[in-house]
Amino acid sequence: MRIDILSLFPEMFTGPFSESILSRARQAGLIDVHITNPRDFSADKHHKVDDIPFGGGSGMVLKPEPFFDALNAVKSVGAADKCRVILLSPKGQRFTQDKAKQLAEYEQLIFICGHYEGFDARIEAELPDEMISIGDYVLTGGELPAMVIVDAVSRMIPGVLHADDSAETDSFYNGILEYPQYTRPRDYLGREVPKVLFSGNHALIERWRKKEALKDTLRYRPDLLTEYKPETKAEKKIYDEARLELAE
Amino acid sequence: MRIDILSLFPEMFTGPFSESILSRARQAGLIDVHITNPRDFSADKHHKVDDIPFGGGSGMVLKPEPFFDALNAVKSVGAADKCRVILLSPKGQRFTQDKAKQLAEYEQLIFICGHYEGFDARIEAELPDEMISIGDYVLTGGELPAMVIVDAVSRMIPGVLHADDSAETDSFYNGILEYPQYTRPRDYLGREVPKVLFSGNHALIERWRKKEALKDTLRYRPDLLTEYKPETKAEKKIYDEARLELAE
Repeated sequence: MRIDILSLFPEMFTGPFSESILSRARQAGLIDVHITNPRDFSADKHHKVDDIPFGGGSGMVLKPEPFFDALNAVKSVGAADKCRVILLSPKGQRFTQDKAKQLAEYEQLIFICGHYEGFDARIEAELPDEMISIGDYVLTGGELPAMVIVDAVSRMIPGVLHADDSAETDSFYNGILEYPQYTRPRDYLGREVPKVLFSGNHALIERWRKKEALKDTLRYRPDLLTEYKPETKAEKKIYDEARLELAE
Repeated sequence: MRIDILSLFPEMFTGPFSESILSRARQAGLIDVHITNPRDFSADKHHKVDDIPFGGGSGMVLKPEPFFDALNAVKSVGAADKCRVILLSPKGQRFTQDKAKQLAEYEQLIFICGHYEGFDARIEAELPDEMISIGDYVLTGGELPAMVIVDAVSRMIPGVLHADDSAETDSFYNGILEYPQYTRPRDYLGREVPKVLFSGNHALIERWRKKEALKDTLRYRPDLLTEYKPETKAEKKIYDEARLELAE
């Protein structure tokens, strides 16, 4: 997958994109990230990308030309059949894990990031295929949201995750939170690991994990369970026990 | 405000924290960011920070000691009366703009980031004052969420924003989306700026902006308006017009 990011602050991406899973995915040739600065597409001799708002008001507004032209450039270089242009905006649809899976199907993703200032409304109206928001909070620019989405999407591309950090045990993937995990030491300053984990009885451990995952979900994220339906009698029993134990 | 981040990938923060508002806030002495690597607190001679899970299963689990010890260290250096320890986790409460305002009141914020692997459950149970999630999607680590929260919180600290990029006109701040903005050129390849913005009539422009902000909110984020109550007859009229024009 080719990923293009249009940003006035390309340096912001250096650290995050050089580390960990993204770096692995880039080295393996699974994703190919390009950062383009719309400032390089400004026709203005001072490479201006913003101007004062028509109708008055404080602040500056990002001009249309540099963004229209930068987008055209990365679209024609990418030349992808399946290309999706995303503008990061509080107006956007809320980003979710399902959206991450959908976006992982494209050949090229292009992210348009604003910074400080608003976009000229013609940019928002014409350039993106969709607008996405990562949550209801105000950020300085679209850069961090773009990094968040690229991270979540990359994990869904086949081959990016190793077998042993498989997405399938992650929280949300199965609709409930992950079960609690423990490692050495068995007793850390008086805080002991639950004994069942040393039983050697895999069925028992599996059952305990399932119940603890449900308890954590009931405790922290009951909203995830509104549509939860146990599929078997055994699962229903575990779910009932989880609810009972929490109520105690 | 002192901000401490416990992360196994300190290099990730270089780009994002060297740019724009955060860099300004740091230079102005308004925030003071320290990144600490729990690996430096590993008692193990190979600086190991993870180990295999008790009870079996794939992947590795982050060990308690490096995180307990790193946290103690940054707490005692910070020595803040009002300190809040935040662990980034899908189990956490959803981050919102209100939470950003609350966190801006602290003298020290400490973020605990995991990466790839889960935390030993004793870390989650004892170290954080609260767990926060930035949204329902799976990320590789807590680093990007920590950056997102630091960005949103910094903007709420008095003095960080200049008067002309005041938070008060931002989306969400007043509970609805921002109005559409336009700058030069007046006609961009046939796409014209709305004429009202050249009327010179400030009351008219104000009214148009209010209505367009409501229309955008109705179109993109109707959920933000479920508790919206116009306060005056004039506001009610604008709201009714916005709904009518959208329905057309």
